[in-house]
Amino acid sequence: MERKIRLLIAYDGSDFCGWQKQKDHAFAPKLPSLQETLEAALSRVLNHPIEVCASGRTDAGVHALGQVAHFITHREQLPRDLCWALRAHLPPTVVVREAYWAPMEFHATLSAMGKTYRYFIWNSDRASPFWFRYSWWIRRPLDLERLQTLSQVLCGTHDFKSFQTQGTPVLHTVRTIYRIQWRRHGPQLCSVALTGDGFLKQMVRNIVGTVIDAFEDGATPQDLRAILEACDRRRAGQTAPPHGLFLQKVYYPKPLDNQCIKL
Amino acid sequence: MERKIRLLIAYDGSDFCGWQKQKDHAFAPKLPSLQETLEAALSRVLNHPIEVCASGRTDAGVHALGQVAHFITHREQLPRDLCWALRAHLPPTVVVREAYWAPMEFHATLSAMGKTYRYFIWNSDRASPFWFRYSWWIRRPLDLERLQTLSQVLCGTHDFKSFQTQGTPVLHTVRTIYRIQWRRHGPQLCSVALTGDGFLKQMVRNIVGTVIDAFEDGATPQDLRAILEACDRRRAGQTAPPHGLFLQKVYYPKPLDNQCIKL
Repeated sequence: MERKIRLLIAYDGSDFCGWQKQKDHAFAPKLPSLQETLEAALSRVLNHPIEVCASGRTDAGVHALGQVAHFITHREQLPRDLCWALRAHLPPTVVVREAYWAPMEFHATLSAMGKTYRYFIWNSDRASPFWFRYSWWIRRPLDLERLQTLSQVLCGTHDFKSFQTQGTPVLHTVRTIYRIQWRRHGPQLCSVALTGDGFLKQMVRNIVGTVIDAFEDGATPQDLRAILEACDRRRAGQTAPPHGLFLQKVYYPKPLDNQCIKL
Repeated sequence: MERKIRLLIAYDGSDFCGWQKQKDHAFAPKLPSLQETLEAALSRVLNHPIEVCASGRTDAGVHALGQVAHFITHREQLPRDLCWALRAHLPPTVVVREAYWAPMEFHATLSAMGKTYRYFIWNSDRASPFWFRYSWWIRRPLDLERLQTLSQVLCGTHDFKSFQTQGTPVLHTVRTIYRIQWRRHGPQLCSVALTGDGFLKQMVRNIVGTVIDAFEDGATPQDLRAILEACDRRRAGQTAPPHGLFLQKVYYPKPLDNQCIKL
């Protein structure tokens, strides 16, 4: 009998080419993908080939605190503690935090109702030897109240075409952002969390980069609204670097969550 | 004319063999030391050979938020922003946070009056892909109140021979610990900060390891006092791993601090 397993995964994306398996390029030295790293570990522990499907792909260098993925196994007997068993086959930068039996109708990508991303900024004259892998270093002092006011314009349901990087074709570019929240963690570290029903390719990084550009240019919320309404990527600002970005949480319908049983 | 420069340095010790320059071993692959890394950068920026002297050596794998070091230069003209100039010659894991003109009587090692070390523990059933380089992973739940009560016994002036790892000879093994403070940073992360007038070789790691052992064995503060009074390293517990340890702050007499002028 086939059964579905749901995983909650955290990873440091620094040394990966992103979530998705890449085709081999003869000319480029290849970093492993998170997908193939997990599939290899699961296949070894469960002793049959496993294919893993995540809530979404993260780009090269992007991290996750709470990525969700599922896979199908025909094994009736699983190790007593699957997370622990996987540990021996994974690098220390990839941790399977939780595993559940999931109903067959659960699908990590298709069932996802929304996501929260968090983007960290190290805002200091000096770099940090500890945060350089996990944040965007901006030297000029940021005013979080002004950044919050600027960002607020983007909340709600809009066509986010201006903030989409071309790539995989999508049906449409309308998304809803429920909440954008800037927060100070200490004298030098701050972050912004974005929660929405879904995000286009590099949308979070394009939003963060554009809001920072708008802040530095002394732009108004109206200027930012004009960029949004232009539906033209060339009107928006820079793409914030990947290493500041964390996939924090993926949301699923409560009835589906309730049918998942911790392994 | 010779002048003295004082530096405030932060570093991720993961990829270093410790502060001090090591002799070459033909048989072992050699990691660089922090001292030689800094000396190379300073020598290139100031264009003459530089020798750096730190407040103390940190072991391989130990980190620093606020290491202090000094060096002597005969250059009258320094780069406008020495920290910034050094950046180009240092790996991202080593950051010179501040630089000062210091009086010639300032000596990073000999003038130091005390130090604060902080030791981080990741206390969770699951490892963290982000904290594995910067904390000791302990799965069994810790009770910080009990750890605080146990540690309290070690505050004050004592012979800390039980907590000294043999190595460089020292004149005597009496030290004063002013304060030991356990603190919770989140549901999984906690730390303990130790402030004292000086610390013997691996003393902080031996204290942390022994207090954790005492906690797990259900020992009492009296048991810990007996270990302290035995003045015998064999009576104490394990040495906590180096990668949880951070040199946080070095203290100097106020009059010396006041004579330092920011570059």
